[in-house]
Amino acid sequence: MTIEQQDYRQFAQHVLPHLNQYLDERLDKDIVGPNLRDAMKYSVDAGGKRLRPLLVLATMGTFSDAPLAQGFGAAGAIELVHTYSLIHDDLPAMDNSDLRRGEPTNHKVFGEAHAILAGDGLLTLAFQWLAENTDLTAEQRIQQVGILSRAAGPANMVAGQVEDIEGEQKKLDLDHLTTLHRHKTGAMIEAAVWMGTVMTDLTKAQQDVLKRYASDFGLAFQIQDDLMDVLGTEAETGKPVGNDTEAHKNTFPSLIGIDASIERINQLVADANDALAAVQSLGDVTLLQSFLDYFDTDHLETLKEQRQ
Amino acid sequence: MTIEQQDYRQFAQHVLPHLNQYLDERLDKDIVGPNLRDAMKYSVDAGGKRLRPLLVLATMGTFSDAPLAQGFGAAGAIELVHTYSLIHDDLPAMDNSDLRRGEPTNHKVFGEAHAILAGDGLLTLAFQWLAENTDLTAEQRIQQVGILSRAAGPANMVAGQVEDIEGEQKKLDLDHLTTLHRHKTGAMIEAAVWMGTVMTDLTKAQQDVLKRYASDFGLAFQIQDDLMDVLGTEAETGKPVGNDTEAHKNTFPSLIGIDASIERINQLVADANDALAAVQSLGDVTLLQSFLDYFDTDHLETLKEQRQ
Repeated sequence: MTIEQQDYRQFAQHVLPHLNQYLDERLDKDIVGPNLRDAMKYSVDAGGKRLRPLLVLATMGTFSDAPLAQGFGAAGAIELVHTYSLIHDDLPAMDNSDLRRGEPTNHKVFGEAHAILAGDGLLTLAFQWLAENTDLTAEQRIQQVGILSRAAGPANMVAGQVEDIEGEQKKLDLDHLTTLHRHKTGAMIEAAVWMGTVMTDLTKAQQDVLKRYASDFGLAFQIQDDLMDVLGTEAETGKPVGNDTEAHKNTFPSLIGIDASIERINQLVADANDALAAVQSLGDVTLLQSFLDYFDTDHLETLKEQRQ
Repeated sequence: MTIEQQDYRQFAQHVLPHLNQYLDERLDKDIVGPNLRDAMKYSVDAGGKRLRPLLVLATMGTFSDAPLAQGFGAAGAIELVHTYSLIHDDLPAMDNSDLRRGEPTNHKVFGEAHAILAGDGLLTLAFQWLAENTDLTAEQRIQQVGILSRAAGPANMVAGQVEDIEGEQKKLDLDHLTTLHRHKTGAMIEAAVWMGTVMTDLTKAQQDVLKRYASDFGLAFQIQDDLMDVLGTEAETGKPVGNDTEAHKNTFPSLIGIDASIERINQLVADANDALAAVQSLGDVTLLQSFLDYFDTDHLETLKEQRQ
């Protein structure tokens, strides 16, 4: 299986059945105990968009002819880490969420102890999958371990979680909010693309260009998420809206307003496209470009007008 | 720094100031945010025996002339994973412990949210440390990632935690209890020795002999721990005693009695010594032998007699 699609939705449709099968088979094999397995699989199967693994595979496939399945270890690993972070986020001591994507959260179904351990298990298993992916060289695998652990760890995602909790009690400025978002969401999206580049022959400078694309993508992703909490409906977003305002969270719309937030997304998408243009001689970047269609500022404008 | 000590207490005295300094400097550098850093360092600095990192370094130093500091990444990583497991174990939803080693547990000092995230941060950082230890080859590092993630993950330590929680409600037989202990404690002790052997030139067969030593050690360790909960005092163990009985936990003394539990430790120590004898031509195993002095069945006998 290699990339034949130029649109991220078609790509997802093509690749996700294979990736989901991989996830399912590996989770069956690598987990001891029926309740732990059920709890871990419940959240992995909970209908996420699989954005991060798709970015891993799209990046790899754009700049390499290797079979996409060689990237399933890395793609699966980042999805496990993302899933663990959602389970722990939802815990009573954290965001105390009863629902995610319209379904009961992990601890509501399996209890708090099992939810904590399911999260711990997913995080640890991610690194096992990276280590055991013998389709890659030891050097490629250890690079991926370094990238994923730094992105998910106490200098990025975990730090961002702490900043998010602590930030509820104070007003952040734009620099701090941008840093928080980079820690909390951006680093993992950057890691997805970066882990993909590790499985290609791109030079470090070329990898850095793609990391700029990913970094723009990650920030735009968070701003759009913030905006949908203000402008969207529960039916569209699959989660309760208005939560950020209620929790006094720092968000882009609360800090710079809705119009400036939409404009910021447009700027980031333009810069991400510029980055892709700089590496288009090395591969067909149409698919990676199409991921930027995820940002629909026209739709956001429409929602804003409906709201007025 | 190489091994010059033949007794594990002297070895600890010699090596721990250096290892602790390494832990301290790396934690200062690798964590963003003062509260997250404080929470993570609080538990790493909480006065553990550092048994697992000492086993990593003693194994490496016994069969290699490389400077011990080359093993600090691996030694530190396993201590981070052990520390995270204690923080999450103590949470209200798990064992709900207020004290550990006579001091308030992490969540009692920093709150539940910070304790969960401190644990997540330590677990993730462990893999970063393994990945970044450029004194080792990529092959050695990725082997260590595989060993540690399998030992700590949902087929071993995390599975053991779940079995422990679920086992409180039913009586296990000896096979199940042995499996539970291997998952919960044994796998990580085996991982310590195994990660040490990765930094030597030992063959796979020779590594397997040392894993037998470690496996014996791990089970004896858990049986002695069970016994101290029945026979020991809070002053000696540094934690409240009688907890296992109160929580209806499955333990060796509750299942096979105190005398048979003490005898089992003696058998395991004898087998561990046999394993070491099989590799003594490859290095001076006196230090590894001395780790077995940790099991003091004479003392256990004395405590038992005092109790009668």
